[in-house]
Amino acid sequence: MREVFQQELQDVQDRLVEISRRVEQSITRATRAFSEGDVQLAEGVIAADAEIDELALALDDLAIDILARQSPVARDLRIVVSALRISASLERMGDIASHIAQLARLRFPDRVAPSGLRETFKRMGELDVQIAGMLVQLLETEDGDLAEQIRNEDDKIDDLHLSVFDQVLGASWDGVAAETVDATLASRYHERFADHAVSIAKKMQYLASGTWAPVDA
Amino acid sequence: MREVFQQELQDVQDRLVEISRRVEQSITRATRAFSEGDVQLAEGVIAADAEIDELALALDDLAIDILARQSPVARDLRIVVSALRISASLERMGDIASHIAQLARLRFPDRVAPSGLRETFKRMGELDVQIAGMLVQLLETEDGDLAEQIRNEDDKIDDLHLSVFDQVLGASWDGVAAETVDATLASRYHERFADHAVSIAKKMQYLASGTWAPVDA
Repeated sequence: MREVFQQELQDVQDRLVEISRRVEQSITRATRAFSEGDVQLAEGVIAADAEIDELALALDDLAIDILARQSPVARDLRIVVSALRISASLERMGDIASHIAQLARLRFPDRVAPSGLRETFKRMGELDVQIAGMLVQLLETEDGDLAEQIRNEDDKIDDLHLSVFDQVLGASWDGVAAETVDATLASRYHERFADHAVSIAKKMQYLASGTWAPVDA
Repeated sequence: MREVFQQELQDVQDRLVEISRRVEQSITRATRAFSEGDVQLAEGVIAADAEIDELALALDDLAIDILARQSPVARDLRIVVSALRISASLERMGDIASHIAQLARLRFPDRVAPSGLRETFKRMGELDVQIAGMLVQLLETEDGDLAEQIRNEDDKIDDLHLSVFDQVLGASWDGVAAETVDATLASRYHERFADHAVSIAKKMQYLASGTWAPVDA
Protein backbone atom coordinates (compact mmCIF):
# COMPACT_ATOMS: atom_id res chain seq x y z
CA MET A 1 0.00 0.00 0.00
CA ARG A 2 2.72 2.42 1.00
CA GLU A 3 4.47 1.85 -2.31
CA VAL A 4 1.29 2.49 -4.28
CA PHE A 5 0.83 5.71 -2.35
CA GLN A 6 4.36 6.91 -3.09
CA GLN A 7 3.76 6.11 -6.74
CA GLU A 8 0.60 8.22 -6.65
CA LEU A 9 2.43 11.18 -5.14
CA GLN A 10 5.05 10.82 -7.86
CA ASP A 11 2.25 10.82 -10.41
CA VAL A 12 0.93 14.10 -8.95
CA GLN A 13 4.35 15.68 -9.31
CA ASP A 14 4.83 14.34 -12.85
CA ARG A 15 1.52 15.80 -13.90
CA LEU A 16 2.36 19.21 -12.46
CA VAL A 17 5.62 19.17 -14.43
CA GLU A 18 3.73 18.15 -17.57
CA ILE A 19 1.22 21.00 -17.18
CA SER A 20 4.01 23.49 -16.52
CA ARG A 21 5.69 22.34 -19.76
CA ARG A 22 2.48 23.04 -21.66
CA VAL A 23 2.31 26.48 -20.05
CA GLU A 24 5.93 27.15 -21.03
CA GLN A 25 5.13 26.17 -24.62
CA SER A 26 2.02 28.37 -24.65
CA ILE A 27 3.75 31.48 -23.35
CA THR A 28 6.67 30.95 -25.76
CA ARG A 29 4.28 30.80 -28.70
CA ALA A 30 1.97 33.53 -27.40
CA THR A 31 4.74 36.07 -26.96
CA ARG A 32 6.11 35.24 -30.42
CA ALA A 33 2.63 35.53 -31.95
CA PHE A 34 2.31 38.86 -30.16
CA SER A 35 5.60 40.34 -31.30
CA GLU A 36 5.48 39.00 -34.85
CA GLY A 37 1.73 39.28 -35.46
CA ASP A 38 1.54 35.56 -36.29
CA VAL A 39 -2.16 34.66 -36.27
CA GLN A 40 -1.68 30.92 -36.81
CA LEU A 41 0.61 30.65 -33.85
CA ALA A 42 -1.95 32.62 -31.83
CA GLU A 43 -4.74 30.21 -32.85
CA GLY A 44 -2.61 27.30 -31.68
CA VAL A 45 -2.12 28.83 -28.23
CA ILE A 46 -5.84 29.54 -27.87
CA ALA A 47 -6.71 25.95 -28.85
CA ALA A 48 -4.09 24.47 -26.50
CA ASP A 49 -5.57 26.29 -23.50
CA ALA A 50 -8.51 23.86 -23.33
CA GLU A 51 -6.02 20.99 -23.02
CA ILE A 52 -4.25 22.70 -20.13
CA ASP A 53 -7.62 23.20 -18.42
CA GLU A 54 -8.42 19.50 -18.82
CA LEU A 55 -5.05 18.37 -17.50
CA ALA A 56 -5.50 20.65 -14.47
CA LEU A 57 -9.00 19.29 -13.80
CA ALA A 58 -7.77 15.71 -14.05
CA LEU A 59 -4.95 16.46 -11.64
CA ASP A 60 -7.41 17.99 -9.18
CA ASP A 61 -9.57 14.87 -9.34
CA LEU A 62 -6.54 12.70 -8.66
CA ALA A 63 -5.45 14.88 -5.72
CA ILE A 64 -8.90 14.79 -4.13
CA ASP A 65 -9.09 11.06 -4.70
CA ILE A 66 -5.76 10.63 -2.91
CA LEU A 67 -6.99 12.74 0.01
CA ALA A 68 -10.09 10.55 0.28
CA ARG A 69 -8.36 7.17 -0.03
CA GLN A 70 -4.98 7.70 1.61
CA SER A 71 -5.67 10.35 4.27
CA PRO A 72 -2.13 11.68 3.97
CA VAL A 73 -0.52 13.64 6.82
CA ALA A 74 2.54 15.87 7.29
CA ARG A 75 4.65 16.33 4.17
CA ASP A 76 2.51 13.99 2.08
CA LEU A 77 -0.55 16.09 2.87
CA ARG A 78 1.35 19.24 1.98
CA ILE A 79 2.30 17.75 -1.40
CA VAL A 80 -1.34 17.05 -2.25
CA VAL A 81 -2.69 20.40 -1.02
CA SER A 82 0.11 22.27 -2.77
CA ALA A 83 -0.64 20.39 -5.98
CA LEU A 84 -4.27 21.56 -5.87
CA ARG A 85 -3.15 25.16 -5.52
CA ILE A 86 -0.34 24.98 -8.02
CA SER A 87 -2.64 23.45 -10.61
CA ALA A 88 -5.03 26.41 -10.19
CA SER A 89 -2.17 28.86 -10.80
CA LEU A 90 -0.85 26.93 -13.81
CA GLU A 91 -4.35 26.85 -15.27
CA ARG A 92 -4.52 30.61 -14.86
CA MET A 93 -1.11 31.08 -16.52
CA GLY A 94 -2.45 29.13 -19.50
CA ASP A 95 -5.44 31.51 -19.62
CA ILE A 96 -3.13 34.51 -19.64
CA ALA A 97 -0.97 33.08 -22.45
CA SER A 98 -4.24 32.65 -24.33
CA HIS A 99 -5.23 36.27 -23.61
CA ILE A 100 -1.91 37.47 -25.08
CA ALA A 101 -2.53 35.30 -28.15
CA GLN A 102 -6.06 36.72 -28.43
CA LEU A 103 -4.66 40.25 -28.57
CA ALA A 104 -2.38 39.13 -31.42
CA ARG A 105 -5.32 37.56 -33.27
CA LEU A 106 -7.55 40.58 -32.72
CA ARG A 107 -5.11 43.01 -34.31
CA PHE A 108 -3.97 40.76 -37.17
CA PRO A 109 -2.60 41.57 -39.75
CA ASP A 110 -1.14 44.39 -37.66
CA ARG A 111 1.30 43.73 -34.89
CA VAL A 112 -0.06 44.44 -31.44
CA ALA A 113 2.75 46.28 -29.71
CA PRO A 114 2.86 49.97 -30.66
CA SER A 115 6.19 50.74 -32.34
CA GLY A 116 7.62 52.69 -29.41
CA LEU A 117 6.97 49.79 -27.04
CA ARG A 118 8.12 46.86 -29.15
CA GLU A 119 11.44 46.46 -27.38
CA THR A 120 9.79 46.68 -23.95
CA PHE A 121 7.25 43.98 -24.80
CA LYS A 122 9.91 41.83 -26.40
CA ARG A 123 11.84 41.97 -23.14
CA MET A 124 8.72 41.30 -21.03
CA GLY A 125 7.91 38.30 -23.23
CA GLU A 126 11.44 36.95 -22.88
CA LEU A 127 11.25 37.28 -19.10
CA ASP A 128 7.89 35.47 -18.97
CA VAL A 129 9.29 32.65 -21.10
CA GLN A 130 12.36 32.45 -18.88
CA ILE A 131 10.22 32.36 -15.75
CA ALA A 132 8.06 29.61 -17.21
CA GLY A 133 11.20 27.56 -17.87
CA MET A 134 12.40 28.09 -14.31
CA LEU A 135 9.02 26.98 -13.06
CA VAL A 136 9.27 23.67 -14.93
CA GLN A 137 12.66 23.13 -13.33
CA LEU A 138 11.42 24.15 -9.90
CA LEU A 139 8.56 21.64 -10.08
CA GLU A 140 10.97 18.95 -11.24
CA THR A 141 13.76 19.54 -8.78
CA GLU A 142 12.17 21.48 -5.86
CA ASP A 143 15.36 23.55 -5.86
CA GLY A 144 14.73 26.51 -3.54
CA ASP A 145 17.24 28.72 -5.40
CA LEU A 146 14.94 28.68 -8.40
CA ALA A 147 12.10 30.11 -6.29
CA GLU A 148 14.40 33.01 -5.44
CA GLN A 149 15.39 33.51 -9.08
CA ILE A 150 11.74 33.59 -10.14
CA ARG A 151 11.12 36.41 -7.68
CA ASN A 152 14.06 38.34 -9.08
CA GLU A 153 12.85 37.98 -12.65
CA ASP A 154 9.37 39.04 -11.51
CA ASP A 155 10.85 42.28 -10.12
CA LYS A 156 12.27 43.02 -13.56
CA ILE A 157 8.86 42.49 -15.16
CA ASP A 158 7.23 44.77 -12.58
CA ASP A 159 9.73 47.51 -13.50
CA LEU A 160 8.97 47.08 -17.20
CA HIS A 161 5.23 47.11 -16.43
CA LEU A 162 5.63 50.49 -14.72
CA SER A 163 7.78 51.77 -17.57
CA VAL A 164 4.96 50.98 -20.03
CA PHE A 165 2.66 53.31 -18.09
CA ASP A 166 5.37 55.97 -17.89
CA GLN A 167 5.66 55.85 -21.65
CA VAL A 168 1.94 55.71 -22.42
CA LEU A 169 1.22 58.57 -20.03
CA GLY A 170 4.27 60.60 -21.10
CA ALA A 171 4.19 63.75 -23.21
CA SER A 172 5.73 62.07 -26.26
CA TRP A 173 3.10 59.30 -26.53
CA ASP A 174 1.17 59.68 -29.78
CA GLY A 175 -0.52 56.29 -29.95
CA VAL A 176 -4.21 56.14 -30.84
CA ALA A 177 -6.66 54.85 -28.22
CA ALA A 178 -6.48 51.28 -29.59
CA GLU A 179 -2.72 51.26 -29.06
CA THR A 180 -3.12 52.62 -25.54
CA VAL A 181 -5.67 49.91 -24.72
CA ASP A 182 -3.47 47.17 -26.20
CA ALA A 183 -0.39 48.36 -24.36
CA THR A 184 -2.32 48.53 -21.07
CA LEU A 185 -3.83 45.07 -21.38
CA ALA A 186 -0.72 43.41 -22.76
CA SER A 187 1.46 44.84 -20.02
CA ARG A 188 -1.00 43.74 -17.36
CA TYR A 189 -1.11 40.19 -18.80
CA HIS A 190 2.66 39.88 -18.95
CA GLU A 191 2.91 41.08 -15.36
CA ARG A 192 0.15 38.78 -14.04
CA PHE A 193 1.74 35.76 -15.72
CA ALA A 194 4.90 36.33 -13.70
CA ASP A 195 2.89 36.98 -10.51
CA HIS A 196 1.36 33.52 -10.76
CA ALA A 197 4.82 32.01 -11.11
CA VAL A 198 5.88 33.79 -7.91
CA SER A 199 2.77 32.51 -6.22
CA ILE A 200 3.70 28.94 -7.25
CA ALA A 201 7.24 29.48 -6.00
CA LYS A 202 5.76 30.42 -2.61
CA LYS A 203 3.68 27.27 -2.59
CA MET A 204 6.81 25.24 -3.24
CA GLN A 205 8.43 26.98 -0.29
CA TYR A 206 5.42 25.97 1.81
CA LEU A 207 6.01 22.42 0.69
CA ALA A 208 9.53 22.64 2.01
CA SER A 209 8.80 24.56 5.21
CA GLY A 210 5.22 23.75 6.19
CA THR A 211 4.39 27.46 6.54
CA TRP A 212 2.40 29.48 4.05
CA ALA A 213 3.98 32.74 3.00
CA PRO A 214 1.48 35.62 2.80
CA VAL A 215 -0.33 35.63 -0.53
CA ASP A 216 0.75 38.11 -3.17
CA ALA A 217 -1.25 41.31 -3.53
CA MET B 1 -15.17 13.33 18.26
CA ARG B 2 -17.78 13.41 15.50
CA GLU B 3 -19.43 16.39 17.15
CA VAL B 4 -16.15 18.28 17.37
CA PHE B 5 -15.56 17.56 13.71
CA GLN B 6 -18.99 18.89 12.67
CA GLN B 7 -18.29 21.99 14.72
CA GLU B 8 -15.01 22.47 12.87
CA LEU B 9 -16.72 22.19 9.51
CA GLN B 10 -19.25 24.76 10.67
CA ASP B 11 -16.36 26.99 11.70
CA VAL B 12 -14.90 26.68 8.19
CA GLN B 13 -18.21 27.76 6.67
CA ASP B 14 -18.64 30.64 9.13
CA ARG B 15 -15.20 31.94 8.30
CA LEU B 16 -15.89 31.82 4.56
CA VAL B 17 -19.07 33.84 5.15
CA GLU B 18 -17.13 36.32 7.29
CA ILE B 19 -14.46 36.79 4.59
CA SER B 20 -17.13 37.20 1.91
CA ARG B 21 -18.75 39.94 4.03
CA ARG B 22 -15.42 41.76 4.18
CA VAL B 23 -15.11 41.46 0.42
CA GLU B 24 -18.65 42.81 -0.03
CA GLN B 25 -17.78 45.78 2.18
CA SER B 26 -14.52 46.40 0.28
CA ILE B 27 -16.12 46.36 -3.18
CA THR B 28 -18.96 48.59 -1.96
CA ARG B 29 -16.48 51.14 -0.68
CA ALA B 30 -14.06 50.76 -3.59
CA THR B 31 -16.69 51.39 -6.25
CA ARG B 32 -17.97 54.40 -4.30
CA ALA B 33 -14.43 55.75 -3.89
CA PHE B 34 -13.97 55.21 -7.62
CA SER B 35 -17.12 56.99 -8.76
CA GLU B 36 -16.94 59.83 -6.25
CA GLY B 37 -13.17 60.31 -6.14
CA ASP B 38 -13.17 59.76 -2.37
CA VAL B 39 -9.54 59.22 -1.37
CA GLN B 40 -10.22 58.46 2.31
CA LEU B 41 -12.64 55.72 1.41
CA ALA B 42 -10.04 54.38 -1.02
CA GLU B 43 -7.37 54.34 1.71
CA GLY B 44 -9.72 52.33 3.93
CA VAL B 45 -10.23 49.67 1.28
CA ILE B 46 -6.50 49.37 0.65
CA ALA B 47 -5.82 48.97 4.39
CA ALA B 48 -8.60 46.42 4.81
CA ASP B 49 -7.13 44.16 2.14
CA ALA B 50 -4.35 42.98 4.47
CA GLU B 51 -7.02 41.83 6.95
CA ILE B 52 -8.80 39.84 4.27
CA ASP B 53 -5.48 38.23 3.35
CA GLU B 54 -4.88 37.26 6.96
CA LEU B 55 -8.35 35.82 7.42
CA ALA B 56 -7.89 33.77 4.25
CA LEU B 57 -4.50 32.46 5.42
CA ALA B 58 -5.93 31.51 8.81
CA LEU B 59 -8.79 29.67 7.15
CA ASP B 60 -6.34 27.78 4.95
CA ASP B 61 -4.36 26.72 8.03
CA LEU B 62 -7.53 25.49 9.69
CA ALA B 63 -8.61 23.57 6.58
CA ILE B 64 -5.24 21.84 6.25
CA ASP B 65 -5.24 21.06 9.94
CA ILE B 66 -8.67 19.44 9.59
CA LEU B 67 -7.43 17.38 6.64
CA ALA B 68 -4.47 16.18 8.73
CA ARG B 69 -6.40 15.38 11.93
CA GLN B 70 -9.80 14.23 10.72
CA SER B 71 -9.04 12.62 7.34
CA PRO B 72 -12.48 13.59 6.04
CA VAL B 73 -14.08 11.69 3.15
CA ALA B 74 -17.01 12.18 0.76
CA ARG B 75 -18.99 15.40 1.33
CA ASP B 76 -16.91 16.42 4.35
CA LEU B 77 -13.76 16.23 2.24
CA ARG B 78 -15.43 18.28 -0.49
CA ILE B 79 -16.33 20.96 2.06
CA VAL B 80 -12.72 21.31 3.16
CA VAL B 81 -11.22 21.24 -0.34
CA SER B 82 -13.83 23.71 -1.60
CA ALA B 83 -13.07 26.00 1.32
CA LEU B 84 -9.38 26.09 0.34
CA ARG B 85 -10.30 27.08 -3.20
CA ILE B 86 -13.02 29.53 -2.27
CA SER B 87 -10.72 31.28 0.16
CA ALA B 88 -8.18 31.78 -2.66
CA SER B 89 -10.86 33.36 -4.85
CA LEU B 90 -12.16 35.59 -2.05
CA GLU B 91 -8.62 36.72 -1.31
CA ARG B 92 -8.25 37.65 -4.99
CA MET B 93 -11.56 39.55 -4.98
CA GLY B 94 -10.22 41.58 -2.06
CA ASP B 95 -7.10 42.34 -4.12
CA ILE B 96 -9.22 43.55 -7.01
CA ALA B 97 -11.34 45.81 -4.78
CA SER B 98 -8.03 47.22 -3.58
CA HIS B 99 -6.86 47.75 -7.18
CA ILE B 100 -10.04 49.73 -7.92
CA ALA B 101 -9.43 51.82 -4.79
CA GLN B 102 -5.82 52.37 -5.86
CA LEU B 103 -6.99 53.82 -9.18
CA ALA B 104 -9.22 56.23 -7.23
CA ARG B 105 -6.31 57.23 -5.00
CA LEU B 106 -3.92 57.64 -7.91
CA ARG B 107 -6.16 60.13 -9.74
CA PHE B 108 -7.31 62.06 -6.69
CA PRO B 109 -8.53 64.86 -6.59
CA ASP B 110 -9.92 63.98 -10.02
CA ARG B 111 -12.49 61.28 -10.46
CA VAL B 112 -11.24 58.23 -12.29
CA ALA B 113 -13.99 57.41 -14.73
CA PRO B 114 -13.83 59.59 -17.86
CA SER B 115 -17.04 61.61 -18.14
CA GLY B 116 -18.48 59.64 -21.05
CA LEU B 117 -18.09 56.37 -19.13
CA ARG B 118 -19.34 57.38 -15.71
CA GLU B 119 -22.75 55.78 -16.09
CA THR B 120 -21.21 52.57 -17.42
CA PHE B 121 -18.81 52.27 -14.50
CA LYS B 122 -21.54 53.17 -12.03
CA ARG B 123 -23.58 50.27 -13.41
CA MET B 124 -20.58 47.90 -13.37
CA GLY B 125 -19.88 48.87 -9.76
CA GLU B 126 -23.50 48.26 -8.77
CA LEU B 127 -23.42 44.83 -10.40
CA ASP B 128 -20.19 43.90 -8.61
CA VAL B 129 -21.67 44.97 -5.28
CA GLN B 130 -24.84 43.01 -6.03
CA ILE B 131 -22.82 39.92 -6.95
CA ALA B 132 -20.77 40.21 -3.75
CA GLY B 133 -24.01 40.30 -1.74
CA MET B 134 -25.32 37.22 -3.54
CA LEU B 135 -22.04 35.48 -2.79
CA VAL B 136 -22.43 36.08 0.96
CA GLN B 137 -25.91 34.58 0.75
CA LEU B 138 -24.74 31.66 -1.36
CA LEU B 139 -22.04 30.79 1.17
CA GLU B 140 -24.55 31.07 4.00
CA THR B 141 -27.40 29.15 2.46
CA GLU B 142 -25.80 27.00 -0.32
CA ASP B 143 -28.87 27.90 -2.37
CA GLY B 144 -28.16 26.71 -5.94
CA ASP B 145 -30.44 29.37 -7.46
CA LEU B 146 -28.02 32.04 -6.26
CA ALA B 147 -25.20 30.41 -8.23
CA GLU B 148 -27.36 30.74 -11.34
CA GLN B 149 -28.16 34.38 -10.57
CA ILE B 150 -24.49 35.19 -10.12
CA ARG B 151 -23.78 33.84 -13.59
CA ASN B 152 -26.56 36.01 -15.04
CA GLU B 153 -25.21 39.15 -13.39
CA ASP B 154 -21.74 38.24 -14.63
CA ASP B 155 -23.07 38.14 -18.21
CA LYS B 156 -24.31 41.71 -17.76
CA ILE B 157 -20.88 42.82 -16.56
CA ASP B 158 -19.22 41.12 -19.53
CA ASP B 159 -21.51 43.07 -21.87
CA LEU B 160 -20.63 46.34 -20.14
CA HIS B 161 -16.92 45.42 -20.29
CA LEU B 162 -17.19 45.01 -24.06
CA SER B 163 -19.15 48.27 -24.34
CA VAL B 164 -16.29 50.12 -22.63
CA PHE B 165 -13.94 48.97 -25.39
CA ASP B 166 -16.49 49.89 -28.07
CA GLN B 167 -16.63 53.36 -26.64
CA VAL B 168 -12.91 53.83 -26.08
CA LEU B 169 -12.11 52.55 -29.56
CA GLY B 170 -14.99 54.45 -31.20
CA ALA B 171 -14.65 57.53 -33.41
CA SER B 172 -16.16 59.86 -30.83
CA TRP B 173 -13.69 58.98 -28.04
CA ASP B 174 -11.62 62.05 -27.18
CA GLY B 175 -10.11 60.92 -23.87
CA VAL B 176 -6.41 61.49 -23.26
CA ALA B 177 -4.14 58.44 -22.87
CA ALA B 178 -4.47 58.48 -19.06
CA GLU B 179 -8.26 58.21 -19.39
CA THR B 180 -7.92 55.37 -21.87
CA VAL B 181 -5.56 53.51 -19.53
CA ASP B 182 -7.85 54.06 -16.54
CA ALA B 183 -10.94 52.93 -18.43
CA THR B 184 -9.14 49.81 -19.67
CA LEU B 185 -7.82 48.80 -16.26
CA ALA B 186 -10.97 49.69 -14.34
CA SER B 187 -13.17 47.76 -16.74
CA ARG B 188 -10.89 44.76 -16.53
CA TYR B 189 -10.92 44.84 -12.70
CA HIS B 190 -14.71 45.09 -12.51
CA GLU B 191 -15.03 42.19 -14.92
CA ARG B 192 -12.48 39.99 -13.13
CA PHE B 193 -14.14 40.59 -9.77
CA ALA B 194 -17.35 39.08 -11.14
CA ASP B 195 -15.43 36.21 -12.77
CA HIS B 196 -14.11 35.14 -9.39
CA ALA B 197 -17.64 35.14 -7.99
CA VAL B 198 -18.71 32.84 -10.84
CA SER B 199 -15.75 30.63 -10.10
CA ILE B 200 -16.84 30.39 -6.43
CA ALA B 201 -20.40 29.63 -7.53
CA LYS B 202 -19.01 26.71 -9.54
CA LYS B 203 -17.12 25.47 -6.51
CA MET B 204 -20.34 25.54 -4.50
CA GLN B 205 -21.96 23.47 -7.24
CA TYR B 206 -19.10 20.98 -6.90
CA LEU B 207 -19.83 20.84 -3.21
CA ALA B 208 -23.41 19.86 -4.03
CA SER B 209 -22.68 17.50 -6.92
CA GLY B 210 -19.21 16.10 -6.35
CA THR B 211 -18.16 17.02 -9.91
CA TRP B 212 -15.96 19.95 -10.85
CA ALA B 213 -17.32 22.14 -13.59
CA PRO B 214 -14.67 23.23 -16.10
CA VAL B 215 -12.72 26.23 -14.84
CA ASP B 216 -13.51 29.65 -16.24
CA ALA B 217 -11.38 30.97 -19.07
